[in-house]
Amino acid sequence: MTEFKFTKLTKSLPATVPFVGPETQERSRGKRFNARLGANENVFGPSPSAIRAMAEAPQWMYADPESHDLRAALARHLQTTPDHIMVGEGIDGLLSYLVRLFVAQGDAVVTSDGAYPTFNYHVAGFGGILHKVPYKGDFEDPAALFAKAKEVGAKLVYLANPDNPMGSVHSGAAIAEAMTALPADTLLILDEAYIECAAASAELPIDFGDPRVIRLRTFSKAYGLAGARVGYAIGAPELILAFNKVRNHFGMNRSAQEGALAALADQNWLRSVLAQIAASRLRIEKIARTCGLQPIKSSANFVAIDCGRDGTFARRVLDGMISEGLFVRMPFVAPQDRCIRVSCGTPADLDYLADILPRALQNAENS
Amino acid sequence: MTEFKFTKLTKSLPATVPFVGPETQERSRGKRFNARLGANENVFGPSPSAIRAMAEAPQWMYADPESHDLRAALARHLQTTPDHIMVGEGIDGLLSYLVRLFVAQGDAVVTSDGAYPTFNYHVAGFGGILHKVPYKGDFEDPAALFAKAKEVGAKLVYLANPDNPMGSVHSGAAIAEAMTALPADTLLILDEAYIECAAASAELPIDFGDPRVIRLRTFSKAYGLAGARVGYAIGAPELILAFNKVRNHFGMNRSAQEGALAALADQNWLRSVLAQIAASRLRIEKIARTCGLQPIKSSANFVAIDCGRDGTFARRVLDGMISEGLFVRMPFVAPQDRCIRVSCGTPADLDYLADILPRALQNAENS
Repeated sequence: MTEFKFTKLTKSLPATVPFVGPETQERSRGKRFNARLGANENVFGPSPSAIRAMAEAPQWMYADPESHDLRAALARHLQTTPDHIMVGEGIDGLLSYLVRLFVAQGDAVVTSDGAYPTFNYHVAGFGGILHKVPYKGDFEDPAALFAKAKEVGAKLVYLANPDNPMGSVHSGAAIAEAMTALPADTLLILDEAYIECAAASAELPIDFGDPRVIRLRTFSKAYGLAGARVGYAIGAPELILAFNKVRNHFGMNRSAQEGALAALADQNWLRSVLAQIAASRLRIEKIARTCGLQPIKSSANFVAIDCGRDGTFARRVLDGMISEGLFVRMPFVAPQDRCIRVSCGTPADLDYLADILPRALQNAENS
Repeated sequence: MTEFKFTKLTKSLPATVPFVGPETQERSRGKRFNARLGANENVFGPSPSAIRAMAEAPQWMYADPESHDLRAALARHLQTTPDHIMVGEGIDGLLSYLVRLFVAQGDAVVTSDGAYPTFNYHVAGFGGILHKVPYKGDFEDPAALFAKAKEVGAKLVYLANPDNPMGSVHSGAAIAEAMTALPADTLLILDEAYIECAAASAELPIDFGDPRVIRLRTFSKAYGLAGARVGYAIGAPELILAFNKVRNHFGMNRSAQEGALAALADQNWLRSVLAQIAASRLRIEKIARTCGLQPIKSSANFVAIDCGRDGTFARRVLDGMISEGLFVRMPFVAPQDRCIRVSCGTPADLDYLADILPRALQNAENS
């Protein structure tokens, strides 16, 4: 057997995966889930006009590598110019490019302990050194993140607003104020995957061209197009241009570009989905309280439910729900892992949740 | 203005793009092309069942990150097992991962001078040092490639069969024979993007699990799904597994997975498309000869037409065709750049080619 001549860095990397997909779990269970509330997908789906546009897109043509029309539409929507916007294969893809642009082996990067693991995966993948600060209660802690960035000389600092997995949110004004302590050599990656689900006050009141921050948004959540893989970055034109040095120029799916354009144009649909998300959050909160559990106030399309004990207990509750056929996930690290995280669902999905959660809880308490 | 703290490697990279998309050219021309024969897309399109499957796919769900069903179907089709197969965001995406797995800064890589520029882009993007060997006539030269790999201690050597941009092909047996001189520490990347368009003898008669080679194939060409971005790598399981260390696990488009599955299942459609491609190649050859030009014998879905002089002349012919509204491309380097490269088209597309090529040629000769 030949030994493959991988790079030293490659050899050092684990083959672990940030998230195991529900299909993998279904294959090992030998049956499908009855409801899918684990990946913060949008069960209410994309605008019908997006579905139509995708069905009609010519699949034989490569996509426009500049995503010109989508960037132009996003620029109009955001009241900025297209040179502030880069479109990519989901936020995950953009995170990979961004880390690659900035992080050489040994470079310091800061995030919260328990924040988005795919970011950590990319940092490790390029040999960066991750420094983590704890959450402050159920919130990421911008002041602590930026202080740590200064302490370790971080190239990048990651902050999600609203947060995943807790759903908590900071006002944009609070983040802007904390940014006065952001070191000049540190770029803030502000992951706004769930921003449409939050109040308008969550928006960072800082110019899109400000070189201190790059914002990441997506069509996967509120717009309901997770399967299409369309994310976008908003930042200073010089930074946006740098993506062209490393990205897969023909990486975008053509019908996904068309779908995102149509979804963006249908703000009425978005509003109706956001109303359904808000109603669903309330219902999940109510179901949790009925079981004697404490829901964490959420500004995203999911609710973290505090199971009231430690991670081992929450894991038992989660396993019980999964064994009943409900796909859900939970935070990876303590103390957030005392929670289970339930994505917003249809009324039928939540009837199912209301049915099985008490039983899963009971079983967890008895085991 | 903050200076961005890009890595040293990032700073050294040009912002150039391997290929400018036809949409970019259309925007600068201020009008659409009348025919699109420049990117070796498949104008005959994918199987109707693939189009249907894509239209019906649930866009709100993330794709299965393992592409389990597609890998299983490919394994059946290839008479191998799924652990020999990795699915990714087109061959371009897989090339990026592959280079990243193997190439650290300063590592040697070998390719042919004038072969696929996107491979070169990724090698440069990870700091690899490219060594190029000339074509031998209109063919890539496996013996010279492998000798150069030995000379420079290359981690990777790239070979396309059939070749792009010339369309020439080696028998799989000839490549296998040349591989006896492939150094033990060099991995052969065999780009088989056009393999379905070639005779069966082009297939490399070497076990898919042979650790010396990784094959790259795609649904973008014969299967007509360029817009969907579905490529796959076939190789030794240990090598295939390594992709999991660096890839964007949720990078695949869900409807693209469904479309590829349906396209693979419809081998009748594939056969009918291949017949149309073969007929189209003959027609392009005939059009070239009618103009007094020499077509290069092609085993792909395009024909390189030797314009009989140097690159400057061929560029003038190409510019003439583009100005008449026909999107075509040409090889980037001498001596292949004496050719223009025309993708297979519909009869109407080729009527158009037959109409404008004589004029473009005449104008090139007169200017």
